[in-house]
Amino acid sequence: MSQKIFLRDDEIPRQWYNLQADMPTPLRSPLGRDGKPIGPEDLASVFPMNLIEQEISTERWIDIPEEVLDAYSLWRPSPLYRATEFERALGCPVKIYYKNEGVSPAGSHKPNTAVAQAYYNKAFGIKRLTTETGAGQWGCALAMACARFGLECKVFMVRISFEQKPFRRLMMGVWGGNCVPSPSQETQAGRNVLARAPDTPGSLGIAISEAIEQAIEDPNTRYALGSVLNHVMLHQTVIGLEARKQMERVNAYPDIIIGCAGGGSNFAGLAFPFVLDKIHGKEIDFIPAEPKACPTLTRAPFAYDHGDEAGMTPLMPMHSLGHKFIPAPIHAGGLRYHGMAPLVSRLAMDGLLRPQSYHQRECYEAGILWARTEGFIPAPETSHAIAAVVAEARKAKEEGKEKTILFNWSGHGLLDLIGYDRFMRGELQDVELSEEELRDCVRCMDSHPRP
Amino acid sequence: MSQKIFLRDDEIPRQWYNLQADMPTPLRSPLGRDGKPIGPEDLASVFPMNLIEQEISTERWIDIPEEVLDAYSLWRPSPLYRATEFERALGCPVKIYYKNEGVSPAGSHKPNTAVAQAYYNKAFGIKRLTTETGAGQWGCALAMACARFGLECKVFMVRISFEQKPFRRLMMGVWGGNCVPSPSQETQAGRNVLARAPDTPGSLGIAISEAIEQAIEDPNTRYALGSVLNHVMLHQTVIGLEARKQMERVNAYPDIIIGCAGGGSNFAGLAFPFVLDKIHGKEIDFIPAEPKACPTLTRAPFAYDHGDEAGMTPLMPMHSLGHKFIPAPIHAGGLRYHGMAPLVSRLAMDGLLRPQSYHQRECYEAGILWARTEGFIPAPETSHAIAAVVAEARKAKEEGKEKTILFNWSGHGLLDLIGYDRFMRGELQDVELSEEELRDCVRCMDSHPRP
Repeated sequence: MSQKIFLRDDEIPRQWYNLQADMPTPLRSPLGRDGKPIGPEDLASVFPMNLIEQEISTERWIDIPEEVLDAYSLWRPSPLYRATEFERALGCPVKIYYKNEGVSPAGSHKPNTAVAQAYYNKAFGIKRLTTETGAGQWGCALAMACARFGLECKVFMVRISFEQKPFRRLMMGVWGGNCVPSPSQETQAGRNVLARAPDTPGSLGIAISEAIEQAIEDPNTRYALGSVLNHVMLHQTVIGLEARKQMERVNAYPDIIIGCAGGGSNFAGLAFPFVLDKIHGKEIDFIPAEPKACPTLTRAPFAYDHGDEAGMTPLMPMHSLGHKFIPAPIHAGGLRYHGMAPLVSRLAMDGLLRPQSYHQRECYEAGILWARTEGFIPAPETSHAIAAVVAEARKAKEEGKEKTILFNWSGHGLLDLIGYDRFMRGELQDVELSEEELRDCVRCMDSHPRP
Repeated sequence: MSQKIFLRDDEIPRQWYNLQADMPTPLRSPLGRDGKPIGPEDLASVFPMNLIEQEISTERWIDIPEEVLDAYSLWRPSPLYRATEFERALGCPVKIYYKNEGVSPAGSHKPNTAVAQAYYNKAFGIKRLTTETGAGQWGCALAMACARFGLECKVFMVRISFEQKPFRRLMMGVWGGNCVPSPSQETQAGRNVLARAPDTPGSLGIAISEAIEQAIEDPNTRYALGSVLNHVMLHQTVIGLEARKQMERVNAYPDIIIGCAGGGSNFAGLAFPFVLDKIHGKEIDFIPAEPKACPTLTRAPFAYDHGDEAGMTPLMPMHSLGHKFIPAPIHAGGLRYHGMAPLVSRLAMDGLLRPQSYHQRECYEAGILWARTEGFIPAPETSHAIAAVVAEARKAKEEGKEKTILFNWSGHGLLDLIGYDRFMRGELQDVELSEEELRDCVRCMDSHPRP
């Protein structure tokens, strides 16, 4: 039996789906420093206006530009597989389908929005993009996209990941990107952190501050974010739109939809095109899977918070561990973000999602079982989704129910082998945020307005 | 314009093409130590009999077992692309098509034969496979295939590559394979080399000796080779068979077919299904691309030689730099083999191929241009094919001719980033075998019979 469900090239979606058209509870506006809702112009020094328009659009369908479709065609439509070997190893009454986003040149789902953002910036006349990156998946994707569209690319990489994952920065270099560890001496935000905490492992929040600072300083430079924002979620919906068609082709429909969740974009990309079905009464269990070391959806309050450490971004209504949060140095660098996409946070508040958290070691265990049965080696982030699949499969067995699971295999782990090695040597620890740590880290939001 | 040319799942070839049915000059038999042709039984302690039968078969079409097709379906059919962005960067009158074999779980074409060999060994009742690996592409492919079919896997990795490419051995570990540097203390062949040359960088020839020695010692163990042999070429023909269909779909036919050539398997896999057309009068320029540091087809004699350093294999009729040859430590570890597949060697002797050699730095330069235009980062081996594409494109421009080039993009370079980094830092040297070195290294074949 063949396990791969292809789409033809001409079946690639030609429009993104914008969940903002269908939100049960519409998003509240971001707030400025004065506590008042901000307008498009307030973001103009950070993002190009064509992307700001997408950020606030409530149009249901947004055309994908031809130039972006051309770039997508390098790896899209991505294959959907039935994981028959993994199913057999689990021995549970589940059918498991996965969408393989690891086939992109950067090895993850991130290029879906990277090429779109590079295209829109180029079209707006921008010459250079700055960004942050955790594990490096996003930095690689943006460097690749900038090479394709002829833009310069500067990446601030969370220091602990810069050290743990030296190869992703070399990848960025092959594509012509310039990657430095964050906090750096290149920005005021970086220097401030280094002055008070010279040994900090860094955080996505700090790296974002540095990237925004450099964008604001130069009129030819803008900032690109790899997750969290509405337009990023929008670009990622190509994943779920394709998956719907592929599932239909084999007459399957998911009972459970799973994605790992750091800032929320790969989860959203798969889940959003199915959300409307749930709103209309279909029973679907949406599970964003996150690390117990960074339990944003499972334990953090829904609040107004900054997206970055220095407080340069507007206040966004989202689940947040506080913008000063420094997560433990787990290997799933892409899941170590203090906040969560406002759209995903809002769905969770409305009871449409069932977030779950996992320890890093059970994720590696699931990832190794995956590699040995299905072949492809998952990224540690993706292994969080696989851990959720394992947990749900076992639950189905206990309850004696048959389930169809669809999950987003968000990226491969070929640049994350040090983590696998450390796990197999028994060197990894499980880290869980204590109640006291949680109280401490959310305190920085005390002065913010309540959403 | 879309650049990817898919095949549907049901268009994956169900038979391999065996060029032995159509060779203009049939292969001579391998010879034993006594100088006499060997029979199937002489190989029975090294390979399972079902693969030995394939090795000597002259049937034109050989069915691909269902279990192998199932495994293939994880990444096959592989996409064929038109490299429009790279074409634009070159500005030459060429259409460039490439077959992307980097989409497999191990990241190269090697799994095409790895899953087949693991399947046939499993079917024959074997419990454990031993092998050699250069850059690690083959070791990874076999470890992945063994995990899938429930076999143990032991890999002897050329020491210089073991050190240059630490991550491919970690990959093998994720799949449950056991990888050690070669020469090792685990075998007599390894100990002999270490005694006389403790600082040797190793060679594929030495690693093969070690792997064969361990296979012969245990009746439940056999040896698997990632290139050179007829059955390996056979398994790789799925590449060219798919490519033919994909080229037909866009009404294209190649004037030039290019593949890098170490032992010959990725070149053969793409080229063999087109060879009959050339025999029947079609003008096709077949270019195996090899390193100037290891110029097997371009400068070495056609001779009877061993496949391994210790002389444990039969004598095979092939182009060879001599089984004692220790190549310079260039980064394209997969192209550092002293010999060449007998089938490829024979075609070259019959004037059907036009082998070319390239320096490592021009290959990296071509590889970086590729990554920045087409997105995917090529392995250093694959970059040799890209360097050949660049050379042929420029030649077409000089001659004012329009050409269609098809080449095998044999694998990605995500585990080879150290080499890219060293190239970009200006640390790499070009190495060319001198006439004197060539005379020295082929001397070890003086006592062998002439083919």
